[in-house]
Amino acid sequence: MSRWNGRFRRPLHPDALRFSTSLSVDRQLYSEDIDGSIAHVEMLSKQHILSRAEAQRIRRALQEIRLEISRGKLRFDPADGSDGRFVAEDIHMAIEKRLIQKIGDAGGKLHTGRSRNDQIALDERLYLRRSINGITGLIRKLQKALVAKAEQCVDVIMPGYTHLQQAQPVLLPHHLLAYISMLDRDHERFLDCLERVKRSPLGGGALAGTSFPIDRRFVAKKLQFDCVIENSIDAVSDRDVQIEFLSACAISMMHLSRFGEELVLWTSQEWRFAEIGDAFATGSSIMPQKKNPDMAELIRGKTGRTYGNLLSLLTVMKGLPLAYNRDMQEDKEPLFDSERTLADCLHISALMLKTVKFNKDRFSKDSTTDLLLATELADYLARKGLPFRKAHSVVGKIVQASVRRGISLKELPLKEYRRHSPLFANDLWKILDLRASLYHKKSSGSTSPKEVAKAIRYWRAKLRRS
Amino acid sequence: MSRWNGRFRRPLHPDALRFSTSLSVDRQLYSEDIDGSIAHVEMLSKQHILSRAEAQRIRRALQEIRLEISRGKLRFDPADGSDGRFVAEDIHMAIEKRLIQKIGDAGGKLHTGRSRNDQIALDERLYLRRSINGITGLIRKLQKALVAKAEQCVDVIMPGYTHLQQAQPVLLPHHLLAYISMLDRDHERFLDCLERVKRSPLGGGALAGTSFPIDRRFVAKKLQFDCVIENSIDAVSDRDVQIEFLSACAISMMHLSRFGEELVLWTSQEWRFAEIGDAFATGSSIMPQKKNPDMAELIRGKTGRTYGNLLSLLTVMKGLPLAYNRDMQEDKEPLFDSERTLADCLHISALMLKTVKFNKDRFSKDSTTDLLLATELADYLARKGLPFRKAHSVVGKIVQASVRRGISLKELPLKEYRRHSPLFANDLWKILDLRASLYHKKSSGSTSPKEVAKAIRYWRAKLRRS
Amino acid sequence: MSRWNGRFRRPLHPDALRFSTSLSVDRQLYSEDIDGSIAHVEMLSKQHILSRAEAQRIRRALQEIRLEISRGKLRFDPADGSDGRFVAEDIHMAIEKRLIQKIGDAGGKLHTGRSRNDQIALDERLYLRRSINGITGLIRKLQKALVAKAEQCVDVIMPGYTHLQQAQPVLLPHHLLAYISMLDRDHERFLDCLERVKRSPLGGGALAGTSFPIDRRFVAKKLQFDCVIENSIDAVSDRDVQIEFLSACAISMMHLSRFGEELVLWTSQEWRFAEIGDAFATGSSIMPQKKNPDMAELIRGKTGRTYGNLLSLLTVMKGLPLAYNRDMQEDKEPLFDSERTLADCLHISALMLKTVKFNKDRFSKDSTTDLLLATELADYLARKGLPFRKAHSVVGKIVQASVRRGISLKELPLKEYRRHSPLFANDLWKILDLRASLYHKKSSGSTSPKEVAKAIRYWRAKLRRS
Amino acid sequence: MSRWNGRFRRPLHPDALRFSTSLSVDRQLYSEDIDGSIAHVEMLSKQHILSRAEAQRIRRALQEIRLEISRGKLRFDPADGSDGRFVAEDIHMAIEKRLIQKIGDAGGKLHTGRSRNDQIALDERLYLRRSINGITGLIRKLQKALVAKAEQCVDVIMPGYTHLQQAQPVLLPHHLLAYISMLDRDHERFLDCLERVKRSPLGGGALAGTSFPIDRRFVAKKLQFDCVIENSIDAVSDRDVQIEFLSACAISMMHLSRFGEELVLWTSQEWRFAEIGDAFATGSSIMPQKKNPDMAELIRGKTGRTYGNLLSLLTVMKGLPLAYNRDMQEDKEPLFDSERTLADCLHISALMLKTVKFNKDRFSKDSTTDLLLATELADYLARKGLPFRKAHSVVGKIVQASVRRGISLKELPLKEYRRHSPLFANDLWKILDLRASLYHKKSSGSTSPKEVAKAIRYWRAKLRRS
Repeated sequence: MSRWNGRFRRPLHPDALRFSTSLSVDRQLYSEDIDGSIAHVEMLSKQHILSRAEAQRIRRALQEIRLEISRGKLRFDPADGSDGRFVAEDIHMAIEKRLIQKIGDAGGKLHTGRSRNDQIALDERLYLRRSINGITGLIRKLQKALVAKAEQCVDVIMPGYTHLQQAQPVLLPHHLLAYISMLDRDHERFLDCLERVKRSPLGGGALAGTSFPIDRRFVAKKLQFDCVIENSIDAVSDRDVQIEFLSACAISMMHLSRFGEELVLWTSQEWRFAEIGDAFATGSSIMPQKKNPDMAELIRGKTGRTYGNLLSLLTVMKGLPLAYNRDMQEDKEPLFDSERTLADCLHISALMLKTVKFNKDRFSKDSTTDLLLATELADYLARKGLPFRKAHSVVGKIVQASVRRGISLKELPLKEYRRHSPLFANDLWKILDLRASLYHKKSSGSTSPKEVAKAIRYWRAKLRRS
Repeated sequence: MSRWNGRFRRPLHPDALRFSTSLSVDRQLYSEDIDGSIAHVEMLSKQHILSRAEAQRIRRALQEIRLEISRGKLRFDPADGSDGRFVAEDIHMAIEKRLIQKIGDAGGKLHTGRSRNDQIALDERLYLRRSINGITGLIRKLQKALVAKAEQCVDVIMPGYTHLQQAQPVLLPHHLLAYISMLDRDHERFLDCLERVKRSPLGGGALAGTSFPIDRRFVAKKLQFDCVIENSIDAVSDRDVQIEFLSACAISMMHLSRFGEELVLWTSQEWRFAEIGDAFATGSSIMPQKKNPDMAELIRGKTGRTYGNLLSLLTVMKGLPLAYNRDMQEDKEPLFDSERTLADCLHISALMLKTVKFNKDRFSKDSTTDLLLATELADYLARKGLPFRKAHSVVGKIVQASVRRGISLKELPLKEYRRHSPLFANDLWKILDLRASLYHKKSSGSTSPKEVAKAIRYWRAKLRRS
Repeated sequence: MSRWNGRFRRPLHPDALRFSTSLSVDRQLYSEDIDGSIAHVEMLSKQHILSRAEAQRIRRALQEIRLEISRGKLRFDPADGSDGRFVAEDIHMAIEKRLIQKIGDAGGKLHTGRSRNDQIALDERLYLRRSINGITGLIRKLQKALVAKAEQCVDVIMPGYTHLQQAQPVLLPHHLLAYISMLDRDHERFLDCLERVKRSPLGGGALAGTSFPIDRRFVAKKLQFDCVIENSIDAVSDRDVQIEFLSACAISMMHLSRFGEELVLWTSQEWRFAEIGDAFATGSSIMPQKKNPDMAELIRGKTGRTYGNLLSLLTVMKGLPLAYNRDMQEDKEPLFDSERTLADCLHISALMLKTVKFNKDRFSKDSTTDLLLATELADYLARKGLPFRKAHSVVGKIVQASVRRGISLKELPLKEYRRHSPLFANDLWKILDLRASLYHKKSSGSTSPKEVAKAIRYWRAKLRRS
Repeated sequence: MSRWNGRFRRPLHPDALRFSTSLSVDRQLYSEDIDGSIAHVEMLSKQHILSRAEAQRIRRALQEIRLEISRGKLRFDPADGSDGRFVAEDIHMAIEKRLIQKIGDAGGKLHTGRSRNDQIALDERLYLRRSINGITGLIRKLQKALVAKAEQCVDVIMPGYTHLQQAQPVLLPHHLLAYISMLDRDHERFLDCLERVKRSPLGGGALAGTSFPIDRRFVAKKLQFDCVIENSIDAVSDRDVQIEFLSACAISMMHLSRFGEELVLWTSQEWRFAEIGDAFATGSSIMPQKKNPDMAELIRGKTGRTYGNLLSLLTVMKGLPLAYNRDMQEDKEPLFDSERTLADCLHISALMLKTVKFNKDRFSKDSTTDLLLATELADYLARKGLPFRKAHSVVGKIVQASVRRGISLKELPLKEYRRHSPLFANDLWKILDLRASLYHKKSSGSTSPKEVAKAIRYWRAKLRRS
């Protein structure tokens, strides 16, 4: 990593310094770095590796530095190594350097029994824990917004689609609840990842552990981690929680991209099923009539970068020999970018959703939508004993007749029905009603109003607790 | 999906049929498809939707079909729709068609209350469960091979590397145990995924549930799943367990790629640290002296396809509106390919590792490797009270002197040491020994022989239980 | 690569053989391999390295082997090394082995002055040339289908979209011609790639060239390549034409995915703008009314695998030291798969497009679509001297009034217009006509009927020549 | 895109503004944006759409704004829409807004006959042209550094590797020239891309062209573009030159990653073949002896982000309907990041290479390296008439004997050779010399000193001209 004055005769080339510095990126980790250092120094003191007085001074100075940074009072400059000691090419060195400026040689003792390799690994895990806490909170907020919207639209009927063709009538809240379920799995995945995040690498040293009598479990406990990563080489060379996090972000963004796509479709003039509030739509520089669903498009589009970030880090780690390699510095930008992207998209989705208004009558009054009931017709025949495959074929012909004659299923006379199967009788007509068909659904988790109400109650209760 | 005779006047174009059929790929799912159908038919019978006699006949015929397929007696032909009923464009239709051939109209009742959408979703989950069971077993086998090798080489010293530069001495078993830890996290990730796999989508129907009084939980229980996926739209439109599985495969392959890279390095003439058994190495068509680590290279190279598979499915699912879209048929090849690739690579890694012989004296007798002890020297000074940063700088100068004079640290006279710091004394020499330095490591999980022995015992016991 | 009997004492483990063989994949290259070998043997004869008689026998036998393979008479078996000579773990060895079976020792001379490394590199380039020729031909066919369709629909008006919101009226042929342009760039890219493909690596040997007095340029000329790849190490270690080809495939599939998306949208009940012929649509196993655009969906979905293939090979090649590494064997499946995928999708797109019927009156008679003319109104004001930004704002308010009152722009009285700007006058009404607005477009390449007709003529002529 | 005051009643939500603004990213395009606007305004004047005076004022003001920005005098603030006119959510609006501030209503006329859609497309193409010019220049510089280094090391012998096993002796300059060839193809690819970049989209308007009598070719010519992109929809909806550029960057980075890997290997203690100058190496925070090849590692690692960037944009564009969608805003960050990454890596590679010193005697004096001559021995036998396959097998056994007896090929007595084949004779010994073996190579482009000298001359001359 850094240049250290003992071994080298010539300073790092300024272009190499600019190329290799990560300060502009990893400065985001300053607070985690200080948390980790404080836990480390408390352990050093407990183990009598540092005196209590030294530890006290270091801890106090680190807290001051945290304030200096958060208040923007500490200027970072990768090239400020002019004093002949360290070039602060990353946030870890910058803080240590500032520490030594403030309290002198004692500051140099902070690094006893650790290396930048385990220090960075720890900082990233602290960052990941914070990120996961933030994201799971935002997932819950979006789920709540979805439940609230589902309750508002509890009786809006829409076509369920397969192949983007109208397939069967469903309740809009049922459709919205599908997204709550997806998000719930995202939530699970982040928590699973968190289990693996909360393991402390500190004490792994450069790669082999240390000859100082440190207490790794004490540090882990201080930082509210569950355990330590035992093997010291593994502790510093592993980046798979990072990749796992990026993967969970990508999957979650994939879910949001589907929602984005649907909002774009629903707000089109052809669908005219939904309208996004003015505060989340934009106009055109040239076409005065336009109201564009930009936020939904951006959410869909930003999926690309989270896929790219995942692939970036997978590529970086491919084929790297153990233990630490400088390539691994490249893990931070994908991490920070995916975290921010997903957090933003969850947040904007929830805000935007609240402003969406649905055109309740769009489909329920559309005469052509009764083709949605074709499956009901087939089930009707199947219930009367016709094998399903035959019933399907009979109804196919009836649909063809209806399309050819340009009239709806409801308008087709019983005589026509009976031409195709004698099983049709006058009880047929109560089948041919969108809303009634919903009530016919019997299966658990179906779109029947009863099941949907039950699901809303379930989520309402579950989300209240979280 | 399929063409059904009621609605269409013209058959599918033969090129379109060839283009869209998935039979050559999804035939792998035949056994899962039959398992799912049997559970479904038992439920239909229990619910009195089918008579017990019908259910019995269907179940028996399905078992016969399973045998016909496993014995290669059933020829699949996507274009065999000549009988005017179904074109068997996928394994699900092929089995149903064969069923109807065997038992007539009753076979047509199997599909009552379900759709191909929930059927496929179920089959893939059964496949994933089987795959995860297979892969976690293979992970355990490779871990066992690593422990066994670690025990064999318990006293082999090697340089630990950072930046591929020799950094500090470590025990080879310590290095090998790092891989056991990585694999253990892979194992965890697959089990986490399995939790989400064991949820039954059956009963989701095409997307909206069904009007038949089915019992979804009964089917789930029959198939030893933990629960059902409640929301019917979610049940048929979700593919995230598939992506999660592909992601876990990619991460695990990344780990294996690192091991492959190390084997390639270690068997090079420059490293000459390891030799792979003849049964896992190959020669050259032109260079008679070559012994190439092809298996290690292939494992490293095959990482590429698992990354590609992950990205493929992420791309497919990006921006798809709910519920099922035909695009989703593209999920199978990545799944099957990553599963097979990872299984093969785990298996070959374990077999190959058993044949690897290490050159025990390669590094322990190499005079130049005592530069590995530089950190020990710095720690020595730090223990005598010099701030670590200063100690580091002092040792840097000593290293420079050693390199300049072309002699090892051990050969440098005490006088030279004391020129750099008066803290050096005669106790210095016991530091300057590779093996002794290992014993100096104090931290938990370090490369000290005691810690390594403890770790071997830990894994030995844990793997015995699994 | 292969095991060769001199150096090894133990045969390859059967699992390692199965794992490493590429025969099931690279058998596709048999014809290219034979073409390359024949050119090589002719050169060896010309250079008097082989006698004319030997060369003659080899060439004849190779031609026979080509027939044997194409007629399915040669069984490949990676494990057929029982005769103690070669295990045919790839197509190159299989052919050489068969050659030696046929003509004895003379067959062994074919490999003089070459290595499998340069041989494989050559075969893939021959394959790429053939693939590019095939794909560029299919691109031309799809372009022709687009022009033909454009001519058929020369007067169909549709909304042009931005953000999937109706933006401005355009002619359907103008929209279709956008795809011809995209495909034309794809065509260019493949031809650019072809320039780099037609360079012969043969003579690179294993990596260093050869001590035989071969004539590399003769071989290149025989194979109708433009030149040789000079540097022998580069010749065998490079795979960038493969990646470039995969990239061109991915971009072209991206274009087709956009067309697939549009067909899915246009055939939805909401758009009802297009209908795909029965021969390229499918039904549902459960919903008798469905007519699904499966081919369009599959084309969109198959984009995923071409992205994955590109990433796979990029990953394989990342960080590989020179020259050949076995990892590079993994280049073939992505190549073959992307080639076949793109070829299929181009072919199906062209066939399907021919069957697509457009609903000519869908938009031209839709009263709400006159909002498309808002830009015309703003331009009208701008032409009368109002700065465009002000004109835009004025028209925005008029649109709002129209939406609020639920009437079209055409129905809004002139008084209302003049309330917003005194520049409006009776010449306003000829602006408010979809078709007329097309005629107002003046710029080259615009959607004006004149420009569109010109473009159709241009493409018609260009494609006739190709 | 933007909100425009006519149609909306409520301002954009501040979080939505922050989420959707691209100003912090696209401000890099300010100079291109002004260049494009100036060309556009000159055309408007020439076509009498604006008066000469208006055009003059606009042009002058735009030049002033360029200075204001380059001197950091213009503060951009996405939320500065307080004046009630425009929110400057991107650089294009920021500049137009400033223009109107400066010259009043006349500024509003700049946007006559264009849209932000064609404006952005143009700006990115101007940016790509500049980027390609920069990158091709840096490629040439790195090629020159490679030629210079090749000349310095013209007689250094090293093992050529396959499978990272020593394979055949090669000259170091020959190995370095392989990289020049790779870079030359990169150069070609960027120039091919440039051909497609230099086509002007301006005049495409929002998507349909414009009713103003603009002269698209005039603008193209002013900007030194080759032609216009005819189809107006294509002009604004296409992003494939961007993807093609990202693909060329990824391939080029792949090449550099291989060079990075080799530098890491060569500077390891095991290889000790190369040493990087102090100005491009770094130390360790804990291990005083370390000299790490960080720049080479970073170059290798940064390959990941260029792969990710390529995949990001491919993902964004997948399945987007025509024409412009807001998702496409996401094209800029990947573009800027890959451009900067590749430019930096090319630059650092060239600087670093100059400081690399090779250990000339490392391999030429290593007794074990004469196994590299095994191919020579096989060729020796083949030249004496033994079929190559047999010769290969004979030499395999000799190698085995040499390895078993622990002596080099040169030390093996002739008797032993003749035990394996009577064709061996006293002329054998001149074969067994590394340097002599190089002279035996006869083929064009081989590693023979004559061929290598020729290649150096070729590149020297070619690069002098560029």
